[in-house]
Amino acid sequence: MKLRRLALLATAFGTTVPLSTACSSAPPPTVAVAPAGTGFGMVIHGGAGTITRATMTDEMEAQYRAVLEQALRTGYEILERGGSSLDAVEATVRVMEDAPMFNAGRGAVFTNEGRNELDAAIMDGRTLQAGAIAGVTRVRNPISLARAVMERSPHVMMIREGAEAFGRELGHEMVPESYFFTENRWNALRRALEAEGLPMPDRPTTAPPSDDGLTLHEDDSDRKFGTVGAVALDRHGNLAAATSTGGMTNKRFGRVGDVPIIGAGTYASPGCAVSATGHGEFFIRNIVAYDICARMTYTGVSLDRAAHQVVMQRLVEQGGDGGIIAMDAAGNYTMTFNSAGMYRGYIDAQGRSTVAIYRE
Amino acid sequence: MKLRRLALLATAFGTTVPLSTACSSAPPPTVAVAPAGTGFGMVIHGGAGTITRATMTDEMEAQYRAVLEQALRTGYEILERGGSSLDAVEATVRVMEDAPMFNAGRGAVFTNEGRNELDAAIMDGRTLQAGAIAGVTRVRNPISLARAVMERSPHVMMIREGAEAFGRELGHEMVPESYFFTENRWNALRRALEAEGLPMPDRPTTAPPSDDGLTLHEDDSDRKFGTVGAVALDRHGNLAAATSTGGMTNKRFGRVGDVPIIGAGTYASPGCAVSATGHGEFFIRNIVAYDICARMTYTGVSLDRAAHQVVMQRLVEQGGDGGIIAMDAAGNYTMTFNSAGMYRGYIDAQGRSTVAIYRE
Repeated sequence: MKLRRLALLATAFGTTVPLSTACSSAPPPTVAVAPAGTGFGMVIHGGAGTITRATMTDEMEAQYRAVLEQALRTGYEILERGGSSLDAVEATVRVMEDAPMFNAGRGAVFTNEGRNELDAAIMDGRTLQAGAIAGVTRVRNPISLARAVMERSPHVMMIREGAEAFGRELGHEMVPESYFFTENRWNALRRALEAEGLPMPDRPTTAPPSDDGLTLHEDDSDRKFGTVGAVALDRHGNLAAATSTGGMTNKRFGRVGDVPIIGAGTYASPGCAVSATGHGEFFIRNIVAYDICARMTYTGVSLDRAAHQVVMQRLVEQGGDGGIIAMDAAGNYTMTFNSAGMYRGYIDAQGRSTVAIYRE
Repeated sequence: MKLRRLALLATAFGTTVPLSTACSSAPPPTVAVAPAGTGFGMVIHGGAGTITRATMTDEMEAQYRAVLEQALRTGYEILERGGSSLDAVEATVRVMEDAPMFNAGRGAVFTNEGRNELDAAIMDGRTLQAGAIAGVTRVRNPISLARAVMERSPHVMMIREGAEAFGRELGHEMVPESYFFTENRWNALRRALEAEGLPMPDRPTTAPPSDDGLTLHEDDSDRKFGTVGAVALDRHGNLAAATSTGGMTNKRFGRVGDVPIIGAGTYASPGCAVSATGHGEFFIRNIVAYDICARMTYTGVSLDRAAHQVVMQRLVEQGGDGGIIAMDAAGNYTMTFNSAGMYRGYIDAQGRSTVAIYRE
C-alpha cells in the first residue's frame, strides 16, 4: 500500500516511477493504480536496450523525451474525450512511427540488402480481434494497416506484397523508400556489414543527400532490435495494445520477430494488455505477452508479479533481453524490463505524465 | 480410471477412441495413458472439417486411412529405435506433405492468383526452440525448412522469398510450381472464384495435362482451410510438435493463418505439446496451442480437460471451427475437435495404431 502511494506520488509530480531490478527477487515496485473513478490511462515504450545515462547526451535525451511526451499526449487526448483505447494506441504508435529516432516506421533499421521491412500488430481487448502485418516496405504507418487487417478483412495476419496490396486498395498512405532513409541507420548497417566483412549495398539514389542532423544514442544505432508500443485503458473499461517495428539491422531471409505475432509481442484481452520490446526470438518462444495475461488469469497473481515472473525470471534465465509495458482492467500498469534502459512513459486520467529512460 | 482403461483397451484393439462431443460439458473421454515404462507415442491429424460418413466413399476413406497409417508408422519407427520426438514429428509430417490429399505440401490449395503458398512450424519441447516459415512457394517439404530455421539460424520465423533463399542456401529440395498442381484443388479454386463472380487465372502451362485419378472428399476440396500435424513423446521423455499447411483456397493479400504462429497452431514445452487445425484466425486470437498448455500448468487440469476448455468451450462460443492433437509428458494424449470430423491417428509404444475420421 505504501509502495502504491509512493508510485502514485511519483507519477503525480512527474518524476520517474521506481523500476524493477534484475537482481531482486521481490516484485518490483512498478505498479501504480489510477485514482478510483477516473480509471483510464496509457503506457508506452520506444524500445529497450543498453541505454545508460553515461552514454546519453542532454540533447539526445531531450529529443527522446519530447517524442515520448508527444505520443502520450496524443493518446491522452483521445482517452480524455471518451475515445477508445484502440484509437488511442493506434494514434500514439503513429506518433512514434513518424519520429526518426525509434526503430519503427520512419526510423526503421536497414536489412542486409539496404531496405526497410516493417512489422506491426494491434489487438482490441474488448473483442479479442487482432490484426498484424509483416515485411511491408512502403507503408508509412504500419500500425494503421495492421488495424485495417483487423477491421476490414476476415484475417488476422497478412505479409509482404499481399499486405501492401491490401493497404493500397484501402488507400493507406504509401511512401517512397527514401522516406525510411536515415543516415544513422545507414551507418549502423555499414558497421554491421563491416563486422562481417561484407560489402555495403549501394546507397539508394533516392536517399536524402546529407545528414538529417539527428544524433541517435549509440545503442539505438547499433543494437539489433527495437520497437515502439502502446497499451491503454479507456473510460469504458476497455484495453488495447499496439506494437510496431522496423525489425533488425542487417536482417536476412525475411526474418520476422515477435511484434506481429499475436501473443508474443502484442496481446490484449478484457483483463490485460501487453506490448513487448526486445530480442524477439525469445519473446516468440515464450509467448511473452499472452503468458503474462495467462499467469494473471489462471494463477491470480497481480499484473506486475506476472510481468516480473516472465521478464525478470523466465527471460533472464534464458538470456532474453527486453521488456514489456502492460495494463490491467483496474488501471494497474507496469513497465518491466531486464535491460539497462527502456524508453517509456505513462499518463494518467488527470493528464499527469511520467517519461523515463534509464533503470533507476 | 474406468474411462482410462476403456480408452486403453480401445487403443489396444485398434478401434476408434471415443471422442468428445460439442454438446457435452463433461470432459470428453479422449485420453489414454501409455503403459508405464514404455512411455512413448505419437498422435497426428490431417485436418478437421465437415467430414461425415454420409459424404465419404469407401475408396476415399481407404486412401486417407492408408496415408495416416503410413505417417504413424514412419514416426513410430523413429521413436521405437530411441530417436527424438523432433525427428519423429518432422518425418511424419513429411509423409503427409508428400500425399496429395491433405492441404499441405503437395496437396496445397490454390491462392486467388492460382499459386500455392505454404506455411509450417515445428517446436522442440525439450529446448523451447522453434522454427516457422510462411508464404513459401517452391519448397517441397516446408516442415523441414521450418526445422532448419530453428536449428541453423538464430531466428524463429522467416517469410516468403527470404525463407526460400535460406532454404536454397542450405540445399533444401525445391520443386517446380507444377509439383503442387492437383486437379481437385484447381477445381476448388474455380468454384470459389465462380461464387464470387471472379475470373479464373490461366491454368499453369506446367500443370499436369489431366486428372491424377485422385478423388478427394468434397469437404477437403471446398473448405477454406486444412493442415497436417504431429505431436510425439519419445523414449527420453521429450515432446515435440509440428504443423504444416497449404493455407486457404482463394486466399488473398498474403494471409497467414495460425500454423506458423508459435503458440497458436504449434507449441511444445517439456510438459505439453499441441498441433492445431481449423479456422486459423480464431486459433491466433485465442493463442490456442499455448493456452492449452498454460491451463495445464497454471490451473492443474489434465491435458484433456484443458483441451476441452479451449476447443469445446472457448472456440465453440466464438464459432471457431477446428481441433487439436496434444500429448503431455506422461504420455496422455488427446484428439479434441468441435467439427464433424478430423483425420487423426495415434500409435502407442507397442506399435498399436488407431486411425479415425468421424466423430463417433
